[in-house]
Amino acid sequence: MIYRESLTFETRGRGTYELTRQVQQAVERSTVVRGLCHLFIHHTSASLIVCENADPTVRRDLEQFAANLAPDGDPSFEHDSEGPDDMPAHIRSILTLTSLTMPVESRRCDLGTWQGVFLWEHRTTPHRRRITVSVVGDEDEKA
Amino acid sequence: MIYRESLTFETRGRGTYELTRQVQQAVERSTVVRGLCHLFIHHTSASLIVCENADPTVRRDLEQFAANLAPDGDPSFEHDSEGPDDMPAHIRSILTLTSLTMPVESRRCDLGTWQGVFLWEHRTTPHRRRITVSVVGDEDEKA
Amino acid sequence: MIYRESLTFETRGRGTYELTRQVQQAVERSTVVRGLCHLFIHHTSASLIVCENADPTVRRDLEQFAANLAPDGDPSFEHDSEGPDDMPAHIRSILTLTSLTMPVESRRCDLGTWQGVFLWEHRTTPHRRRITVSVVGDEDEKA
Repeated sequence: MIYRESLTFETRGRGTYELTRQVQQAVERSTVVRGLCHLFIHHTSASLIVCENADPTVRRDLEQFAANLAPDGDPSFEHDSEGPDDMPAHIRSILTLTSLTMPVESRRCDLGTWQGVFLWEHRTTPHRRRITVSVVGDEDEKA
Repeated sequence: MIYRESLTFETRGRGTYELTRQVQQAVERSTVVRGLCHLFIHHTSASLIVCENADPTVRRDLEQFAANLAPDGDPSFEHDSEGPDDMPAHIRSILTLTSLTMPVESRRCDLGTWQGVFLWEHRTTPHRRRITVSVVGDEDEKA
Repeated sequence: MIYRESLTFETRGRGTYELTRQVQQAVERSTVVRGLCHLFIHHTSASLIVCENADPTVRRDLEQFAANLAPDGDPSFEHDSEGPDDMPAHIRSILTLTSLTMPVESRRCDLGTWQGVFLWEHRTTPHRRRITVSVVGDEDEKA
């Protein structure tokens, strides 16, 4: 038996959005005690990361790093039909995660102390983003 | 029960090769209705990506980006026993995917509208590449 | 049924540490014959990679590549509370793997001839790192 639900996020444009709480709640609803939780984002210009969740400067530096690595409006990019952030968004997605699997233990994703799960919106404008959560494993017999 | 099959691709050298159709066909053969599909490529100089599948300029720009990031023949690379594309191929593989998991819903990998699955060959010469497809989940009782 | 165990590694600071043998031993203990093996590292400044396992120059060049891509002490990084290697460690982790899934076939992770699994420590000082191994699939009926 596989537990599945769909999560939708309305981003406010480029940036990181923590979704650890929403993922943990989905795992609780699944009634899986021990297993695996899989996330999949259905887009090629937004992605998933596991990132330090305590100090916001980490994600600010990460954003700057990505902006330097694949600059918006770089004239070497041919693909710019949706604007200067179009191709950089695809590159950032490909260098990070479309799919992420985490262990579930005692009804929760067993993340490290400083690990948070984030949606990383790479487009500069707001977008609606869909993520599928799947949970598999040993269920609570009393549930 | 886990469904498994092996796919083999003969690449024509560096470039991206869409394999969405082959993966969807493997999922159909699995008789899994809802579950997860996992791909694994058994190489360290070719990789997997989920990429925008409509406009070929995306993958052309991506190729150029990778060529700039880890240039063939860069004199700072010590490992060049198989040629100037040897070490860049390993770096490109490590920055992208060896392993990819996708949700299966209604007997298909539930990809976003613009998502395609691609094998990215990083060596300049043709190679035979092996990918293992695994499908787990709830099977059709009538199958 | 999901098999699970926890592996702990004491790193000696920045560098790659092969853990293929430890992972294969965990798979053997799981009694899973055919399935999937999932690794998860519970940190944001160390990561997992699948890398060429024969020639150590590959990992030396990879280390140099990462050092150039995200240099220690880069003044553009605001996040340096744990030292000049703090933010580079997070970036290296995000560009590589926190989570890795491999096919299990005939009681072993079915890796390619040149594929090894490595823990990549990104901090310059020694750290204790925790990895959770999960194995799912068809078990040996005689076990």
